[in-house]
This record gives sequence, C-alpha cells and structure tokens, in this order.
Amino acid sequence: MQHDFTIQTRGQGLYEFTHEVQAWVGASGLGNGLLTLFVCHTSCSLLVQENADPDVQRDLRAYFSRLVPPSSDPSMAYLRHTYEGPDDMPGHIKAAMMPVSLSLPVRSGALVLGTWQGIYLFEHRDAPHRRRVAGHMM
Amino acid sequence: MQHDFTIQTRGQGLYEFTHEVQAWVGASGLGNGLLTLFVCHTSCSLLVQENADPDVQRDLRAYFSRLVPPSSDPSMAYLRHTYEGPDDMPGHIKAAMMPVSLSLPVRSGALVLGTWQGIYLFEHRDAPHRRRVAGHMM
Amino acid sequence: MQHDFTIQTRGQGLYEFTHEVQAWVGASGLGNGLLTLFVCHTSCSLLVQENADPDVQRDLRAYFSRLVPPSSDPSMAYLRHTYEGPDDMPGHIKAAMMPVSLSLPVRSGALVLGTWQGIYLFEHRDAPHRRRVAGHMM
Repeated sequence: MQHDFTIQTRGQGLYEFTHEVQAWVGASGLGNGLLTLFVCHTSCSLLVQENADPDVQRDLRAYFSRLVPPSSDPSMAYLRHTYEGPDDMPGHIKAAMMPVSLSLPVRSGALVLGTWQGIYLFEHRDAPHRRRVAGHMM
Repeated sequence: MQHDFTIQTRGQGLYEFTHEVQAWVGASGLGNGLLTLFVCHTSCSLLVQENADPDVQRDLRAYFSRLVPPSSDPSMAYLRHTYEGPDDMPGHIKAAMMPVSLSLPVRSGALVLGTWQGIYLFEHRDAPHRRRVAGHMM
Repeated sequence: MQHDFTIQTRGQGLYEFTHEVQAWVGASGLGNGLLTLFVCHTSCSLLVQENADPDVQRDLRAYFSRLVPPSSDPSMAYLRHTYEGPDDMPGHIKAAMMPVSLSLPVRSGALVLGTWQGIYLFEHRDAPHRRRVAGHMM
C-alpha cells in the first residue's frame, strides 16, 4: 500500500505528523508489517523525536542552526551554492545529516513507537513549503 | 516475523549486538529478505560501524561528546530542555544525527554485512538504561 | 530481488548512481514495492541529494571536511584510531552521521524520487576504493 502525506511548513522547525501516519496504518487493516516513509525533497528531513516537551523541538532547531549557520555567516564564506538565499546550502547540509527515510515495524495494526516518540518533518528552509512524504506499507 | 532485542546499557558508549541479530536471522529459516531494526527511544541510536578495533568505538564517543557537549557547558547555555540532567538534550540531538532505523538485506540466510561491519546501539545517556530495539524481517 | 552495485571511487566526494538504480528497478518489472540500499563499508555513506548544481556536492564535501577534520589537525589530537592515515577515523565518524541504508518506495515501476533528488555514494577516504552497495527490492 502506498500513500502520500502532505505537510505545509511555515519556516524552519519541526512539524509533527504522527497522527496522520497512525491513522493511515490503522485504516489499512494491516496486522503485522513494515512502514517506510521517504521525503521527496533535499532541504528537509524526517525525524523520530521526543513529543512530550516542545522545548526539545526548539532546542533541536537552535542546535542545528548553530552547527550549520546561514551562508551569510562569515564562517560559511566558502560555500558556493547560495543563490536561493543564506538558508539554501545549510538546508542541503542538514538534509545530509538527518534521515531522508525511516522504517518502522507495525504490530497488531499499530506502529512500534516508544511512549515518547513522535514522527516529524524537520523543515530547513525559511520560506513556507508544501512537502511531500511518500509512505509505503506491507 | 517480528522480534524485540533488549540491550542493557551502562552509560554512554557503543554496545554491539550483531550476534543476537545474526542468531535471529539464522533461526528464522529465511533465505532472501530484508531485516529492519528500529530503536524505540529518543536518546540512543543504531549504528553499523567497524568492529575490529575498539578504539573506533572510543573515538566515536569522544568525537560526538565534543560536537554535542553537555548542557552544563557554557557553549550550550541556550538549551532549555535540561531537567533530566546535562546529558538529556545532547542525547536527543545525537539521536537526530544518527540512525533510529536500519535496513539490511538478508541473502541465503545471512546479513549482507561487510567484513568489518558490526551492529551497535549507541547509548547517549550517562545512567544505565534498558533499551528496546524492534526487529522486523520478511 | 537482490543486486549488488559496484562504485569505483577516486577519493573523497560524491558519486551519483541514480541511473544504475533506476535501470535495475525498471528491468525488474516490479510495479509497486520498496527498494532498499545498504552500503557494506564503514567509511562511506549513502545520500539522497540535489543533483542539479554540482556546487552542492562540492559544498557538502567542504562542510563535512571542516566539521570532521583529518586526525592530523591539532583539534583532533585525541583520536587514537589513526593507523590507516589522517582520513581513517574521520571516515568512520562521517559514516556514523550519514546514512548506511536508504529505503525508497517504488510506484508504477519508478522510484518516488523528487525532481531534484539523486542517489549518491559519499566516499570519505582519500584513496580510490571499490565500494559495494547491496540492493533489495520487493
């Protein structure tokens, strides 16, 4: 079974879509199986992260924006791929450091997520984007 | 087929469980297929890494503890999610940078691991933890 | 279905093999399914990245060579696993930060890659290497 998830972003940050994924898994009638998600873009990532304290999402964004500063930062002057703006190449770098695909076992019709785990799209661009995540289940 | 692996950790570092995975694959009687591992936590990771020289594991831990210092380090003063201790948020950050899921082809009943490849759980917390890795094979 | 891809590298950098993967998927006659790639080495990675502007590949290499300098760099003097040269341990570190496996849905016989996405092997060693990527499709 295949399904596309659409996530509308509003600038850099994490966007949870665990409920959408769970709803699809539940509606599928699949007992045991495997879910795979793949994000069809090169400037955002997929994360499984803590979903209890919103500060985790804030801190993740703060950390990675320091680890990979905008190309307008003097420390990043060596970058060449900058024509879409200072968040362009840092977005590709972050997309190399964090997952483009995730695979999660499904058991008795539910994802094997831990108690505090949620599924997120991590947007690396400043402008709003409409992101597509391709889902596959078997 | 599904199976849970339990890994008891004793603080930060890499814990190999290649043999446990191989034993499960071997016992399954599966010829060709696909193995997926998913770690049900947000402060540890799954790695495929060199298993010949233990210094590789030591160096990996040393590198990542410098790249993501404890939140007690002045350079990390901007972090907010710190109530479980100075290793709390750094654990989530490392969990974002390293795999939460791995997929390995199985051929003729064996994992396609390279000669020097082992499967590890990378514990990011200081305290001992009992970690669950969900396995799926088909 | 299983297949090995061989990628001959000529030092650090990104090597695209999207066409080889697409050719295998196309020849398989598979309609809908899932493709998994796994790299059988601990000093190179698999990436899905932008394939329009070659500067992206250059910038990725430039960024990661700064984030993880050679062990000959004074800042890396704490590393011990150095006997294969200054690019040895940094190769393992980069291999921990970037994917060892990728999973991509296949729809109507084609990969669900976005418009600008290509599949790359990222070589982390200075010397040429013959790299093996194990492919699995179902």
